[in-house]
Amino acid sequence: MSSAAPEPAPAAVPTRPLTAQEEAVVRALTHLIHALPRAIDGDMVRERRLTLTEYLTLMHLSEAPDRRLRMGDLADVCDMSLSGTTRVVHRLESEGFVRRVRCGEDGRGRHAALTASGLARLESAWPAHLAAVRRHLLDHLAGLDLRALAAAFRNIAT
Amino acid sequence: MSSAAPEPAPAAVPTRPLTAQEEAVVRALTHLIHALPRAIDGDMVRERRLTLTEYLTLMHLSEAPDRRLRMGDLADVCDMSLSGTTRVVHRLESEGFVRRVRCGEDGRGRHAALTASGLARLESAWPAHLAAVRRHLLDHLAGLDLRALAAAFRNIAT
Repeated sequence: MSSAAPEPAPAAVPTRPLTAQEEAVVRALTHLIHALPRAIDGDMVRERRLTLTEYLTLMHLSEAPDRRLRMGDLADVCDMSLSGTTRVVHRLESEGFVRRVRCGEDGRGRHAALTASGLARLESAWPAHLAAVRRHLLDHLAGLDLRALAAAFRNIAT
Repeated sequence: MSSAAPEPAPAAVPTRPLTAQEEAVVRALTHLIHALPRAIDGDMVRERRLTLTEYLTLMHLSEAPDRRLRMGDLADVCDMSLSGTTRVVHRLESEGFVRRVRCGEDGRGRHAALTASGLARLESAWPAHLAAVRRHLLDHLAGLDLRALAAAFRNIAT
């Protein structure tokens, strides 16, 4: 409403460089992002002949209503591309752990559905996944505030 | 030295299931592992037309002695496969930011070497990377013990 000339835009504030501690966090987390899934996956393949991606796919299906999800929704909860999800589901389907079923009013959609055999496979792999997660991740977080950490991780991820 | 019969091996102790807080940390970190690189990469491509992978490749070369690394060593520090590293280096080479040079006594090895133009590209992208790292990661860690966090991340990664 004022007729005064608009104020000049504030000069862009240069972003503060990282402190040594911030830099250490960023570098260590960058390595963790690659190393942690690889370590857990390595244990699971060795002990259970199931990749971490396969395990998480079965797990997310087991948690869904009626143990089934649209392919796109499965890709979302697994943080995977649709093509990557399709590959994993094909592999799990070939072993009888997942079925692909038509869905939607016109039957054109596709659900991935967990089979009884897939649920049994998930349950038998659960101890190996649990042990790997404790060994490679949680054992190293002893003494840290897990509640604050989970909240921070959630904020970063969304 | 004793002649007594060896003690029976202790029964395998089942791994303790996750508490709700541990589960929350694992799930949030799993999402972070996918979401954080994607968020930083998105900002950098939008603002600087440079992928995060390209940025980190240039960064690691800039920090190496003589600003050059054997391809295998570059892959290691970047947490990438050798084939993935080769693809990135080819792309950076086609834009003049990296040169590939022979090395070793018999000249059969290959180094990737940062060019002056590559160093300038890295420096011009640095503020965007810094801002993205603050926005997507460090701003969410305010109040946490960064020293303890860096140590935990390092232990997990190695």
